[in-house]
Amino acid sequence: MKKADGKQIPQRVVSRLAMYYRVLSQLEKGGVERISSRELGEMMGITPSQIRQDLSYFGEFGQQGYGYKVSYLHLEISRILGLEKQHSMILIGVGNLGRAIASYTNFRNRGFKLVGAFDVRDELIGKKLGDIDIQPTTELRAFLKQNKVDIGILTVPASQAQQVADILIEEGIKGIWNFAPLKLNVPENIIVEHVHISDSLYSLSFRLHERFN
Amino acid sequence: MKKADGKQIPQRVVSRLAMYYRVLSQLEKGGVERISSRELGEMMGITPSQIRQDLSYFGEFGQQGYGYKVSYLHLEISRILGLEKQHSMILIGVGNLGRAIASYTNFRNRGFKLVGAFDVRDELIGKKLGDIDIQPTTELRAFLKQNKVDIGILTVPASQAQQVADILIEEGIKGIWNFAPLKLNVPENIIVEHVHISDSLYSLSFRLHERFN
Repeated sequence: MKKADGKQIPQRVVSRLAMYYRVLSQLEKGGVERISSRELGEMMGITPSQIRQDLSYFGEFGQQGYGYKVSYLHLEISRILGLEKQHSMILIGVGNLGRAIASYTNFRNRGFKLVGAFDVRDELIGKKLGDIDIQPTTELRAFLKQNKVDIGILTVPASQAQQVADILIEEGIKGIWNFAPLKLNVPENIIVEHVHISDSLYSLSFRLHERFN
Repeated sequence: MKKADGKQIPQRVVSRLAMYYRVLSQLEKGGVERISSRELGEMMGITPSQIRQDLSYFGEFGQQGYGYKVSYLHLEISRILGLEKQHSMILIGVGNLGRAIASYTNFRNRGFKLVGAFDVRDELIGKKLGDIDIQPTTELRAFLKQNKVDIGILTVPASQAQQVADILIEEGIKGIWNFAPLKLNVPENIIVEHVHISDSLYSLSFRLHERFN
């Protein structure tokens, strides 16, 4: 992976990297060997020049008149995203959303491994989430002192989210995947990805309203 | 709501409208009466000129030297998003994700009302999702012939998603909120919002990799 030194990668480019990865995964599965930036752009709803500009942050991946080699670009973007590295994760909040997130994607295959699950509800303690024992949230701090965890998945109610996040941060977790509908206060060196599920519903509402009213 | 004629609203502006709505909701709850475009920009991570440009698609909302009146802008954006209108929704796929989506946001309060829930699993039929009876998916078509539904929420496995989407479209549904990890083939007049939950995990992985490696 080449990366031009000192260039700050804008968030919109980072967001699109995930989309490149997804689209290239589909193309590779479908047996497509190469693709032009025009075709790739059409699949992603962006212009070919935007693609070239995005990828230029990381190096040279295409060839004039040939386009992109799908498997190569897929692998490189996987590396850029850090997906070849194993990430250990814990999940706090084993409700419907927590269970859905844990099973939604096969994390292990993509470099993400769930190593712990926590909940405050007594009736869940000792039960399983996949092959993981659900532990009481009171054990969270002790668990983090004994296990290296990269990412905490927050699927607790908003009222508990900040308190849990504080424990994660105090015990050295650097990344939080936050599904609680609450903006977390975190130090600058902590990386939070907040999933706003309702945003896409509002976009859908806008498009319906725009078209059919 | 004013809207300049003939201007196509870019998707990135639509996506930010949902963010404006969310941030302004927080500000209003917090009792904030007015806000400058600089402050609003800082909260959203975009520039003041970007805000002015986004909002210019819809009219004039701010005043030089005063900024924006929070409650007014909140209401106007709610109107622009079509949130003052009642949307009827059905959910297909009452697994963990479906249950989470149904309870995640209080849809009814925001102009979204769940009117039906469907699943293929016999053991779920006749049980409840909130105050809605879960019906067999074989009843979906008949239900849609008798009830006006605006939005279908797809929380079925990828293998069933296209088949269910086809029924929704044939029976007149115009908007699909798709959580199945599959790109749906739909006619041009159908609006699909696809929620890619894993994209944000990839962004998180990138930021961790970028900062700590």
